[in-house]
Amino acid sequence: MIGGGQLARMTHQAAIALGIGFRVLAASPTESAAQVVADTVVGEHDDPAAVLAFARGCDVVTFDHEHVPREILQQVLDLGVAVRPSPDALHFAQDKAAMRQALTEMGAPVPQWAVVESASQAEPFGERVGWPMVLKTSRGGYDGRGVFVVRDSAEAARVMERPLAAGAVWLAEEWVPFEAELSAQVARSPQGQAVSYPVVRTVQTNGICTEVVSPAPGLPPEVSAQAQELALRICDRLGVVGMLAVELFWTKDGVLVNELAMRPHNSGHWTIDGAATSQFENHLRAVLDLPLGAPDPVADHTVMVNVLGGDHPDLYSAYLHVLARNPRLHLHLYGKSVRPGRKQGHVTVCGPSLPELLHEAHHAADYLTGVVDE
Amino acid sequence: MIGGGQLARMTHQAAIALGIGFRVLAASPTESAAQVVADTVVGEHDDPAAVLAFARGCDVVTFDHEHVPREILQQVLDLGVAVRPSPDALHFAQDKAAMRQALTEMGAPVPQWAVVESASQAEPFGERVGWPMVLKTSRGGYDGRGVFVVRDSAEAARVMERPLAAGAVWLAEEWVPFEAELSAQVARSPQGQAVSYPVVRTVQTNGICTEVVSPAPGLPPEVSAQAQELALRICDRLGVVGMLAVELFWTKDGVLVNELAMRPHNSGHWTIDGAATSQFENHLRAVLDLPLGAPDPVADHTVMVNVLGGDHPDLYSAYLHVLARNPRLHLHLYGKSVRPGRKQGHVTVCGPSLPELLHEAHHAADYLTGVVDE
Repeated sequence: MIGGGQLARMTHQAAIALGIGFRVLAASPTESAAQVVADTVVGEHDDPAAVLAFARGCDVVTFDHEHVPREILQQVLDLGVAVRPSPDALHFAQDKAAMRQALTEMGAPVPQWAVVESASQAEPFGERVGWPMVLKTSRGGYDGRGVFVVRDSAEAARVMERPLAAGAVWLAEEWVPFEAELSAQVARSPQGQAVSYPVVRTVQTNGICTEVVSPAPGLPPEVSAQAQELALRICDRLGVVGMLAVELFWTKDGVLVNELAMRPHNSGHWTIDGAATSQFENHLRAVLDLPLGAPDPVADHTVMVNVLGGDHPDLYSAYLHVLARNPRLHLHLYGKSVRPGRKQGHVTVCGPSLPELLHEAHHAADYLTGVVDE
Repeated sequence: MIGGGQLARMTHQAAIALGIGFRVLAASPTESAAQVVADTVVGEHDDPAAVLAFARGCDVVTFDHEHVPREILQQVLDLGVAVRPSPDALHFAQDKAAMRQALTEMGAPVPQWAVVESASQAEPFGERVGWPMVLKTSRGGYDGRGVFVVRDSAEAARVMERPLAAGAVWLAEEWVPFEAELSAQVARSPQGQAVSYPVVRTVQTNGICTEVVSPAPGLPPEVSAQAQELALRICDRLGVVGMLAVELFWTKDGVLVNELAMRPHNSGHWTIDGAATSQFENHLRAVLDLPLGAPDPVADHTVMVNVLGGDHPDLYSAYLHVLARNPRLHLHLYGKSVRPGRKQGHVTVCGPSLPELLHEAHHAADYLTGVVDE
């Protein structure tokens, strides 16, 4: 797995159970996964020599993030090592303009969108879809970075003064007044076997996922089925192998695709404790062309809340209280140094009472980060 | 954790979630845990220099087996590093004569027993309790090694010709005609918090645990309560910190203590997939003096079956079939080379129908080991 963040760290837990050799390419020996994975190679994901040295001896290379340049992945393929998802599929997760184009061509519901090269092109788009609208860089953004909600053409012009990453363009999109944000996750293997997890409700705060509820509360069965079918269709059409997360806006008229991620995703962390097979295990099974595990939930409701870096420099000072308060709380810490707003870990609770689970999970996260102290 | 076997390997999975630094002392870099734990130190558990070098910088030292000599543990304590369970407590897991004595003194139900120094002492004991009877070495045995069922005094004499490990004595015990074997597991922290897992039924084949069913089928609630209370009392009286497994014979007259293990135990592997908190996580929480997690089962029934090395030199050849047949099967492989009878892994299934779970788990284990091929 290229990338040594928490996704690789949690994938290691699944690899241990499956008895699979698991090697990580981490940017430093202190990264989240590098701390725990025995077979860690230190190197940058955009350094061809480092990636090739890492890949030699692997059966399959997969990812903890989407940032590996396509040219490097082609060199990995040239070594005779499988890359899953393939560079062709991954392209649609790396480039939002390509993703919008592909989804539009396959008839998937998406917000109105256009590639805009200048503020003078952005303005008529904004007038047509209505303000505020959204401006996004097509490449290089994550966790809300590179996404801007602009209220008028002057603000659009200011945003578009920012430099773009190499190969990136500006994407203008209608701002969607959603009922809720959803995520539909599926796993797909090279031979086309696929499983679909329950559709979950996600809450983003400042562009970062902060809460996931599975299954999405109040979602009509037909909308849930529509979302799952859509995710399976996208997976198949784009040739995705591994986990695919389709982030969706749920509106009065149905669902619209917001983003795609071709790897384990924050919206699926709940599956470690709340599903028969975790997204990390199914990602491994899929990229290794093994039969997939059941995605069934193990409880009526599961709530996952992210622990973001806050005022407490040391999460462990709050650890005792949080574990003592709720012996059914599942704590997952990533071993990362605390920086405000940085994902440090997550908590998960499963059970029959959704209001109680929401209260408990948020209390634990807030206590760990110093938002509450009792 | 001293010892690099599968118990340390699975404890690592729990340490990753808790965000705890986890170091292993493994006998070789290819041992089960050494393959996956980033912070592995290679050295022998009975080499004082290796153990002390390993222990330096640890907050707490704990165990994947009971074989570390007491003198070495004393030196670890002298470094100022906590040893949990303590050498005093661990003594009762290392020495079965000391264990029998302590249990007898506290009034715990045990089979009739005696230390016998010669065949001429063993014979009258056998005459008194009835043949067959059991001869055991007090030290150095595990997985049925060092335990002999003898039918008469001639056989007893032959067994007692075997050399004893250093410090060991022969223990004679009545052979107990049990209804079933049980295991009662508890976790206890230094400040005395304890949790008790459901009492499970275990099946040993040639002295090796092969099947665990949780909760123990048909066990009357009062016998289950008696077993749990007994395990908690032993834990408290012997000052155990961490996981304690009390292996029991269930007879028409109640329960009798067979063995003790002061670490995660094969009879608790089902807790990874079948309980709110696994035995590995609770062992870590206990030895680190953290609040303990809930031991509640997550399904009506959970069945764990060990995968022992068989005729297939490569377990992975059967892997595809087993995963495809049952997407709800939890597979745990230990990364060990295949030797006949060696524990290679285990499978777990959870659900409402016990007969179905037993069938599925045994089929998977039998298929993996080549006992069945369809």
